[in-house]
Amino acid sequence: MSSRKHKFERKNLGTSPGTLEYIGPPLDDHVQIIRTVFNKAEQQIVSVKSMADVGPSPNPDFITWLSIDGIHKPDLIEQVGRIYDLHPLMLEDILNTLQKPKFDFYGDNTLFLVMKWIKYNPVTREVEPEHVSFVLGPNWVISFQEERTRDIFETIRQRIKAGAGKTRQNGPDYLLYALADVIVDQYFRVLDCVEENLANLEEALFQKAQQKHIQEVYTVKRELGVMRKVVAPLREIVLALTREVPSTDKSLISSNTELYLRDLYDHINQVNETIEIYRDQMTGLMELYNSTISNRLNNIMKVLTIISVIFMPLTFIAGIYGMNFEFMPELHWKYGYPFALGLMAVMVIAMLAWFRVKKWI
Amino acid sequence: MSSRKHKFERKNLGTSPGTLEYIGPPLDDHVQIIRTVFNKAEQQIVSVKSMADVGPSPNPDFITWLSIDGIHKPDLIEQVGRIYDLHPLMLEDILNTLQKPKFDFYGDNTLFLVMKWIKYNPVTREVEPEHVSFVLGPNWVISFQEERTRDIFETIRQRIKAGAGKTRQNGPDYLLYALADVIVDQYFRVLDCVEENLANLEEALFQKAQQKHIQEVYTVKRELGVMRKVVAPLREIVLALTREVPSTDKSLISSNTELYLRDLYDHINQVNETIEIYRDQMTGLMELYNSTISNRLNNIMKVLTIISVIFMPLTFIAGIYGMNFEFMPELHWKYGYPFALGLMAVMVIAMLAWFRVKKWI
Amino acid sequence: MSSRKHKFERKNLGTSPGTLEYIGPPLDDHVQIIRTVFNKAEQQIVSVKSMADVGPSPNPDFITWLSIDGIHKPDLIEQVGRIYDLHPLMLEDILNTLQKPKFDFYGDNTLFLVMKWIKYNPVTREVEPEHVSFVLGPNWVISFQEERTRDIFETIRQRIKAGAGKTRQNGPDYLLYALADVIVDQYFRVLDCVEENLANLEEALFQKAQQKHIQEVYTVKRELGVMRKVVAPLREIVLALTREVPSTDKSLISSNTELYLRDLYDHINQVNETIEIYRDQMTGLMELYNSTISNRLNNIMKVLTIISVIFMPLTFIAGIYGMNFEFMPELHWKYGYPFALGLMAVMVIAMLAWFRVKKWI
Amino acid sequence: MSSRKHKFERKNLGTSPGTLEYIGPPLDDHVQIIRTVFNKAEQQIVSVKSMADVGPSPNPDFITWLSIDGIHKPDLIEQVGRIYDLHPLMLEDILNTLQKPKFDFYGDNTLFLVMKWIKYNPVTREVEPEHVSFVLGPNWVISFQEERTRDIFETIRQRIKAGAGKTRQNGPDYLLYALADVIVDQYFRVLDCVEENLANLEEALFQKAQQKHIQEVYTVKRELGVMRKVVAPLREIVLALTREVPSTDKSLISSNTELYLRDLYDHINQVNETIEIYRDQMTGLMELYNSTISNRLNNIMKVLTIISVIFMPLTFIAGIYGMNFEFMPELHWKYGYPFALGLMAVMVIAMLAWFRVKKWI
Amino acid sequence: MSSRKHKFERKNLGTSPGTLEYIGPPLDDHVQIIRTVFNKAEQQIVSVKSMADVGPSPNPDFITWLSIDGIHKPDLIEQVGRIYDLHPLMLEDILNTLQKPKFDFYGDNTLFLVMKWIKYNPVTREVEPEHVSFVLGPNWVISFQEERTRDIFETIRQRIKAGAGKTRQNGPDYLLYALADVIVDQYFRVLDCVEENLANLEEALFQKAQQKHIQEVYTVKRELGVMRKVVAPLREIVLALTREVPSTDKSLISSNTELYLRDLYDHINQVNETIEIYRDQMTGLMELYNSTISNRLNNIMKVLTIISVIFMPLTFIAGIYGMNFEFMPELHWKYGYPFALGLMAVMVIAMLAWFRVKKWI
Repeated sequence: MSSRKHKFERKNLGTSPGTLEYIGPPLDDHVQIIRTVFNKAEQQIVSVKSMADVGPSPNPDFITWLSIDGIHKPDLIEQVGRIYDLHPLMLEDILNTLQKPKFDFYGDNTLFLVMKWIKYNPVTREVEPEHVSFVLGPNWVISFQEERTRDIFETIRQRIKAGAGKTRQNGPDYLLYALADVIVDQYFRVLDCVEENLANLEEALFQKAQQKHIQEVYTVKRELGVMRKVVAPLREIVLALTREVPSTDKSLISSNTELYLRDLYDHINQVNETIEIYRDQMTGLMELYNSTISNRLNNIMKVLTIISVIFMPLTFIAGIYGMNFEFMPELHWKYGYPFALGLMAVMVIAMLAWFRVKKWI
Repeated sequence: MSSRKHKFERKNLGTSPGTLEYIGPPLDDHVQIIRTVFNKAEQQIVSVKSMADVGPSPNPDFITWLSIDGIHKPDLIEQVGRIYDLHPLMLEDILNTLQKPKFDFYGDNTLFLVMKWIKYNPVTREVEPEHVSFVLGPNWVISFQEERTRDIFETIRQRIKAGAGKTRQNGPDYLLYALADVIVDQYFRVLDCVEENLANLEEALFQKAQQKHIQEVYTVKRELGVMRKVVAPLREIVLALTREVPSTDKSLISSNTELYLRDLYDHINQVNETIEIYRDQMTGLMELYNSTISNRLNNIMKVLTIISVIFMPLTFIAGIYGMNFEFMPELHWKYGYPFALGLMAVMVIAMLAWFRVKKWI
Repeated sequence: MSSRKHKFERKNLGTSPGTLEYIGPPLDDHVQIIRTVFNKAEQQIVSVKSMADVGPSPNPDFITWLSIDGIHKPDLIEQVGRIYDLHPLMLEDILNTLQKPKFDFYGDNTLFLVMKWIKYNPVTREVEPEHVSFVLGPNWVISFQEERTRDIFETIRQRIKAGAGKTRQNGPDYLLYALADVIVDQYFRVLDCVEENLANLEEALFQKAQQKHIQEVYTVKRELGVMRKVVAPLREIVLALTREVPSTDKSLISSNTELYLRDLYDHINQVNETIEIYRDQMTGLMELYNSTISNRLNNIMKVLTIISVIFMPLTFIAGIYGMNFEFMPELHWKYGYPFALGLMAVMVIAMLAWFRVKKWI
Repeated sequence: MSSRKHKFERKNLGTSPGTLEYIGPPLDDHVQIIRTVFNKAEQQIVSVKSMADVGPSPNPDFITWLSIDGIHKPDLIEQVGRIYDLHPLMLEDILNTLQKPKFDFYGDNTLFLVMKWIKYNPVTREVEPEHVSFVLGPNWVISFQEERTRDIFETIRQRIKAGAGKTRQNGPDYLLYALADVIVDQYFRVLDCVEENLANLEEALFQKAQQKHIQEVYTVKRELGVMRKVVAPLREIVLALTREVPSTDKSLISSNTELYLRDLYDHINQVNETIEIYRDQMTGLMELYNSTISNRLNNIMKVLTIISVIFMPLTFIAGIYGMNFEFMPELHWKYGYPFALGLMAVMVIAMLAWFRVKKWI
Repeated sequence: MSSRKHKFERKNLGTSPGTLEYIGPPLDDHVQIIRTVFNKAEQQIVSVKSMADVGPSPNPDFITWLSIDGIHKPDLIEQVGRIYDLHPLMLEDILNTLQKPKFDFYGDNTLFLVMKWIKYNPVTREVEPEHVSFVLGPNWVISFQEERTRDIFETIRQRIKAGAGKTRQNGPDYLLYALADVIVDQYFRVLDCVEENLANLEEALFQKAQQKHIQEVYTVKRELGVMRKVVAPLREIVLALTREVPSTDKSLISSNTELYLRDLYDHINQVNETIEIYRDQMTGLMELYNSTISNRLNNIMKVLTIISVIFMPLTFIAGIYGMNFEFMPELHWKYGYPFALGLMAVMVIAMLAWFRVKKWI
């Protein structure tokens, strides 16, 4: 994570493990809870005010998706935890925006997944990660996100509403996949921004390398580091999801969804590799910049040297004949002046010839 | 992929997974479909206009190879998918030219393989990858390619026609191997171009390092990165094909073809290693260039310093005797002028001796 | 470990293995022994003077935690070893502050764990590791630490006293986890200091790069190396604890604690990755600094070259008309002086135009 | 492989796999075939003219070693293949001098091994690999080599003739080991040449770094890359030979030979590690060179700056008193001239003192 | 191994494997053989003149340790081999000082171990490895070493004599461990020398970077490379000893010794990691040095530029008024001279202000 991002306290250091504290940038008060209930035949999307309105437990005939935007209120998360019987360590991770991506099984029928939504801020030129967690139960999914970027998953809700796509036809595991897929798609979008930056930088460096470009190279490289930290663990996570689950227990993830997870794994891999390739190219640009600067220095010094080599001897000769000795025969020659000028001309020509031989000009 | 290559929209971001959209550079309308049907005794090669003319399903007594040049028409691909019963995710990958090399089994009797054909463009000095996919079924193979470079696989068709080589004697798995081998052979051809570039660059840098050379080193290195991205995943893919298949199920890949796959694996390995060696050498050339430039700077500065060290004192002495003081005894000496010249000569000789001692000249 | 830290003798080199010698910086005499005895119902925390007051063996109805601050007295450690029946090699490692983190089983029911507490010294800007060891037995834990930073584990004692948290409800394995967690939490605190340093350095380098900054980059990188040496082995250690123990023998670590160990593993991973990211950024800063310096040199040389290119010819012309030849027609022209000045002005303008063309000014 | 080495066509690209074509530098016509037949009691070494003279199949009471120098004749290789029943892919690899080291089993009783003999060419300073292949059958060995360096294996033949060493006492597997050992011994010889180069370069750089040295560093590093490409795969090959074979099938490699193979593995490892260490040292030398050049530049610039700082003010003062103003009181002072000289002396002393303080002189 | 160390012939290249030849630097004639025989009750240490005096085979009631200092006599080693029935390949490795560390089982009851004793030579600043081999039999140990540093293992003999430590209480496997431990302890001593060097270098570079420092950095790094080559293989060796042996066969290494071997493994790991950390720091110092040099160049150039920018215009003005035109009004002004001086002063002040703005002074 970039060094300017979390100027907030890690309140949980030194407390007993499992103590619930929100760790993240301060946010305003608003929290948005949307409950989506659907099966192949019906769907209902309701925005509720508090967990009290959500109802005690999900209806087994439907798939329930509870989407909570705003994790800065430990009370709310604790309430959710009590209703859905979630482990305290899981709740701690949901509240901790510094927690890196991970997945874990709690008991036989609860799967916990942490991912990072990212946004490219074109003003600060920074990649800003946002904390997103998912809990998958037998027939429900809960998604938690910071409330900074609202409605990340609005498209999924639209698809459910429209009955388009495969979400309505499949179980909660497919829903989880669809939500994760939204996040991975966003990685491609951010990479496209990075790529544009990179192409511009490359062109700029090929034409006229400047100090500001190298600072930009540094910034882009650092932000790619942020992305890598966010994306790299996902590879292992999705691979584990693909491999481990179906063999042990078919209840949480069906073999149908497995195919889609393999596709997701593929995309994550592609994001990862693209990040590495861009980092490599940034290093290449850095080297190119340094070589260009060295080369330019050479050219500057060549000009300085040529001018010095030509004018120093000339000035010296002029100095000679500017001396005030009484007895200097040349001064009294009739053609002394043209002689001196001629001498100078000869020297200039000799110098230029020498430079030509050394291939400096 | 180089940063200037895909200035086209990723239309599939944000859509439901499995939605069919062509992702790639815009192309003109033409599509070419060639159906090759053969067994040991007979062969028939027909260019058909549309999938309607291909017929519903392949004849089990023959091996059918359907070669489709032009993947920019989702409708056509969807049609093929319907006839051969291909999974939507597979069709999505066939249409996505940004998809990296991969292989996957769909069900028990369909093998899906994505590779990249590459071309070295001598004008832009870029390596241009083209998207190629294969589907292997019980007695058929379908190959999909962008229509930019037509007839990549024409040589295979010639061999089938002539009955030469082993293609006619073997099953569809051997045909798949033969098609993949054509692509890997092309990698060697592109590497030969790179090698020539590298040899030229090396010679140029040994003789006269210039700024343009270093830009070329950067370009070649970047293009090798493109190649690596294309070739690296193949290693694992072919290894998996060699190892996994025959043990579980003999129907798709026969043990006879396994030997050829091992040979292919070997070639891919060789391509990979050659790429790494060339990248290493590019880095070496970069370092050589930088050292050369530093060295040249030293030589330039030496010239400047020598000229300054010699002429600054001389000019100073001339300046002294150019002063207009009333009482300067030397000015009135009879041999003042030769004395001054002599003094200067002595200084020049001393300086030159000192440089000689310091081994500058 | 930084190169200035252990200017004390490795007394154990050359002695028979298992010989007890304190290896570490000299410390004053004080040793603090605190015995904490608790179960769900009761707790008692006593500071004892010597091992003689501790009593022969722990009460099986309680969990006993013996906390020993001060390992510079081999006699004391030997006494502990005799009472709790600890292996000589274990005692040797407890006394050796140069021992790196490790864990080992001695027999079936003794687990030995070495970790490092670290402190960031803001004056010397060094990360100072302190040696901490734990021994876990059937119903007891012994913690050993250097007496430099006292009361590292005071918070745990407070929690036990208050009955808050889960320590009182769980076994000695949870206590061991809680103690290790205190140490890992401290890593995050030190990393926050490093991060602040890094952010300051980054800003300073973007504004005005100076030699002292690069020395600081070097120092921070070295200290991150110290941290890495301390943290890196923990990953494997905690992973091994999580995986190996419960399968072979449920007595030492309960499956309940396993969940917490997985959480700890996660934190250690995060510390490790953060260290790597910071090291990467330090390298990036170093490169940025070098590029900045090169660039600045270019600017300096440009000024020098411009001034030389302008004034050398001018001075030469002045020198020409300062010559004392008898026959120099220009000297006697009425407008010779303005002519010379005009000539100079023309030259200056020409030079400036040339610089403008070369984009130097 | 270095970039200047294979300026010959890869004739096999685009042909059907298994088509026999010689790929390598053009060679003259000569081919040498030597048949060695031996057992513990007898031995016979015959140079034959063509495969027709070799006889149809080897005598089971003897061990037959067929040594073929010259692989540029596909016909000959095909003939051998027919007599010994060798797979077409194997023959293709025997003819392809670009094939990297590999080993493979063809069926149960044929082992195929590709290695590279290397030679250090002191004129071009290049490491030149030569293609060597071995086929091991139940009681015969065939060795193929390019005919450039003749009689690589002459020493083995001498040992067989003399009955010295263990070759006569052992089976064809020991013979194969002995032949491979000859090649690995040669690697040590080439490394000794490299080492001498490296030691000379090191000494030269410590005394007087020059541009040509850095070009040599580059060359040596590139040639080490060639060696690495040749030696690296052998590690895995010999390890596989040692491990896999005896467990599955005792017929081709006996447990007695296994000990010798382990020894060979050890030597290959040593060659590999030495290459890596030399590469590391080359990088170190490169860095040393660059630092030296930078340092030298500093020294040059110091001289230039010192001379400028001293003479510019002096020349300026001389210039002042060279002005032609009518009213300049100093010019008419009696001691104006000594005063000016004194002023200059004071300035020189001040400058020198300042340089001394800055530790420049 | 550093490039100046083995200027002796590899006599074994080209000979039949298992041929006995000493490969190492030439040594004088002396050889020392010490036979130590002990059990819990008794001990006897005798220096014998030749193998003939040693006696045919060790007494099964005692543990026999034969220590041979001086491996430059193939005859002697062959004699030992005959008495103890050692394999020719083992003898070859004992005689070859270039052999890297390894271990091997020969048959069921002979373990062969090669290690390197190292010495830091403070004069040449080189790490000098010495070849040490051990053979462990059922109730005997033989140690071979070059005779350059005599009595490496004298401390062990002292402990046996005194009955101190655990050597007398344990079997030959513990003795082997104790001997290996002496060598590993020595690594720590050499590392302490390196560390001191490193600390001095660091301080020197922080204060005044000089060319000689960078040559020292190079030397230390190269010597760390030598150490790494010597220590790195030990990790795997001791791990293999710890893991493999007790499971297959309890006769050679007892489970009691296993604990000590794990401790040894730990120490070797620590040595390895310390070497890597020091290498990292050397790289850091190199970078620091380069940055310092660049920075210093900047400062030198700044001085040169400031002095040039100030004096060039001044000298030019003085040159103007040194011209000899007849009609130059300023020359005849009463206050022409003060005017010129004032003009110069104004220019100097302007220049200084400009430098102040650019933050150069």
